[in-house]
Amino acid sequence: MPEAGIPKGTRDFSPQQMRLRQYLIQTITKVYELFGFQPIETPAMENLSTLLGKYGEEGDKLLFKVLNSGDYLSGTDLNDPGLTSQSLLRNISSKGLRYDLTIPFARYVVQHRNEITFPFRRYQIQPVWRADRPQKGRYREFWQCDADVIGTDSLMSELDLIQIYHRVFNDLGLADYVLRINHRKLLEAIAGHCGFGDHFRDFTVAIDKLDKIGWEGVDGELLSINPRFNSNALHQLLQKWELNSETLARLKDEITASESLSKALEDLGYIVDGLRQLDLPVQLELDLSLARGLDYYTGCIFEALIPSSGIGSVSGGGRYDDLTGVFGLKDMSGVGISFGIDRLYDILLQRELGPNLSRGHVHALICHFDEPSFAEGMKLAAFLRAGNVPVELYPEIRKIKKQMDYANKCGIPFVILIGSEEIQMGQVRLKNMLNGEQELLTPEQIRTKLSNIA
Amino acid sequence: MPEAGIPKGTRDFSPQQMRLRQYLIQTITKVYELFGFQPIETPAMENLSTLLGKYGEEGDKLLFKVLNSGDYLSGTDLNDPGLTSQSLLRNISSKGLRYDLTIPFARYVVQHRNEITFPFRRYQIQPVWRADRPQKGRYREFWQCDADVIGTDSLMSELDLIQIYHRVFNDLGLADYVLRINHRKLLEAIAGHCGFGDHFRDFTVAIDKLDKIGWEGVDGELLSINPRFNSNALHQLLQKWELNSETLARLKDEITASESLSKALEDLGYIVDGLRQLDLPVQLELDLSLARGLDYYTGCIFEALIPSSGIGSVSGGGRYDDLTGVFGLKDMSGVGISFGIDRLYDILLQRELGPNLSRGHVHALICHFDEPSFAEGMKLAAFLRAGNVPVELYPEIRKIKKQMDYANKCGIPFVILIGSEEIQMGQVRLKNMLNGEQELLTPEQIRTKLSNIA
Repeated sequence: MPEAGIPKGTRDFSPQQMRLRQYLIQTITKVYELFGFQPIETPAMENLSTLLGKYGEEGDKLLFKVLNSGDYLSGTDLNDPGLTSQSLLRNISSKGLRYDLTIPFARYVVQHRNEITFPFRRYQIQPVWRADRPQKGRYREFWQCDADVIGTDSLMSELDLIQIYHRVFNDLGLADYVLRINHRKLLEAIAGHCGFGDHFRDFTVAIDKLDKIGWEGVDGELLSINPRFNSNALHQLLQKWELNSETLARLKDEITASESLSKALEDLGYIVDGLRQLDLPVQLELDLSLARGLDYYTGCIFEALIPSSGIGSVSGGGRYDDLTGVFGLKDMSGVGISFGIDRLYDILLQRELGPNLSRGHVHALICHFDEPSFAEGMKLAAFLRAGNVPVELYPEIRKIKKQMDYANKCGIPFVILIGSEEIQMGQVRLKNMLNGEQELLTPEQIRTKLSNIA
Repeated sequence: MPEAGIPKGTRDFSPQQMRLRQYLIQTITKVYELFGFQPIETPAMENLSTLLGKYGEEGDKLLFKVLNSGDYLSGTDLNDPGLTSQSLLRNISSKGLRYDLTIPFARYVVQHRNEITFPFRRYQIQPVWRADRPQKGRYREFWQCDADVIGTDSLMSELDLIQIYHRVFNDLGLADYVLRINHRKLLEAIAGHCGFGDHFRDFTVAIDKLDKIGWEGVDGELLSINPRFNSNALHQLLQKWELNSETLARLKDEITASESLSKALEDLGYIVDGLRQLDLPVQLELDLSLARGLDYYTGCIFEALIPSSGIGSVSGGGRYDDLTGVFGLKDMSGVGISFGIDRLYDILLQRELGPNLSRGHVHALICHFDEPSFAEGMKLAAFLRAGNVPVELYPEIRKIKKQMDYANKCGIPFVILIGSEEIQMGQVRLKNMLNGEQELLTPEQIRTKLSNIA
């Protein structure tokens, strides 16, 4: 007999957990829609040719690959002495589970470019899969919640995304969020200024580890790239700054002039101006040590976190000038962000924010004593549901205590008791399970009363 | 360069399609919740030991299997001359994509039995995957929308599910639905009566094909099981009957008495009584040729369809007495139904039911002429969004005609025009894109007006 278990790193979501997840997803969806983003969904499986090579060597390894169906070994010479896991793979698997929502979105845009009206603002909320080593807060199946604007390089999109962060966190009750911003071209200018002009990629890879390995570790890596790099200037620059025009003027003075520097400071200046005009009290930090590993970012980059939660970043994103190029569509600038549902979920749980989880969506359980009251209960249930009041009827004739226990365990706030006397009077008893109060009411009165509870 | 395509049998859903799908799913969810069902979700991947052997030999073949991660061939002797696709499979794959939501639910119930309050009513709306040959209306990734009650054999659950069918179809505007019902024990009694007492399974497999191969084909298969079976009696019985007490009395007279017959007629009698008491005008047919292939059904079985759509059944379900037994939990009776979202979607589209698809959720596009009006537009957008009015601001300074075109293509019903004169007056122009009407309004007036449009 198979054991009733699930693959490691995956989870079931029970009704209580679903309530909090649905609240989270609805809150984010509502904000995305206020800003004009439209939903799309893509298949769980993508062709491996779409996925491979997009997430680095490590990413390729972490992709879940799906076996071709049917006799998947036909056409494979098993006696080939050079056969390895990797060479066989090409024969037996052509599909993989999506690793994020960004590459499928890029593929979607290219495939549907003739139906899409650009600039296109899409949101997408779906699970992704990674064969990572499972650990606390890291799963092999987890949900992303993405919003991207593609087909315009207008920095208004960055301003929209900053406003979205502010609204989402405030709507969730997480007003103590911090949003970090940086600009890849500013990092490029700094890399040049400090002696890494020809090694920008390695430079960002090292910088990206600052949180994990500290300056000592990062300096070690940087020294192996350029033993004579200007570490004083670098440490001085790669700090958290207030984002305002004074800071930008100072950076302009301190960093060796370049096209990248001008572009970055111009972009950041636009954002400073925009936020001032919008008078938005957003908690924005210019964090020059923020690199965001992914190669495809080319402009502003973001990272959001709830510092006191002890949980890492809950969202990241940025601008990419050529995400769709790899699928053959050039010159499509875009910018997007992604919320990690699973980490936000943990923070809401930690702070007991969101809906009351012990309370289900059912307003009342109808209890009965015998066949006739069971039959009456069925009619009453139908009447209340016709009025859009969610109710349950206990499905078996059982002791009233057992029925009440069920209501309590399921977090149902009211029970309706149907006795033979009450049937004759055309009334039933409504009992509040929290305070024990009881009232005799007609079905219409019950419907009105239960329609108005939260 | 990889081509921008997706695996055959899978689909992308663009915003218009998402609108109709979301409407469908929300409509069904609302009804499920009115009846007290609670949501759960399970992982896309299940252990193969959970899935294999549950859907017949054909089902095992149609499961998508996921390669083990890392060096999946380690521990496999490729020189073993007996190596086949099937024997290698055990070494290299231990997970598969879920094939339906019923087996994962059974696994969930067993795994979480100590946290669940029984009777447990759960709904679950997630995609499933089958490596079937793709064809019109048949996909390799499709959505199921299940509701099950487990932990009680009360026929009240069957009555609830019948009411759910009635409500869902009416809420969707599909009042011409037909619901077919049968009882596996009635089929068993008929099998006995006609000479297939020892071959019930083969009998149902043959009957199940009636729609596809007609009586001629079915009789052929049945003759090969029992060359002397009573075909007259069988053809006479396996028809569509009105479900009422007269029919049940007649069946009692015509079919050889047995325990199965008594139980089936008792159950169906309960449903006839219940529906009469509820006074529900449900379109219910007693279809004695309905078999529903799956072995695990043991009581009432259902199938729902929209006959004039030309599309097959859109939902099916039934009672199972021992679904969780295979995972070690005995004596758990349950009953459930499943809607196929993809077929319902096709029918709504065919009949142009549901929301207006050409109209997005954005109420207005804010258009501008120059830098100052763009800046004003950004403030106006923030003001309207703060009032929960979804609006877009055209992100670039472009000719007004281009901005209007964008609004038209995106199905945005209003545009807001910000000119320099209007800025001075503290007013903006609101234009109805359908009838061309224009008004000069303050931001507050616009917010009120746009809050009240559907």
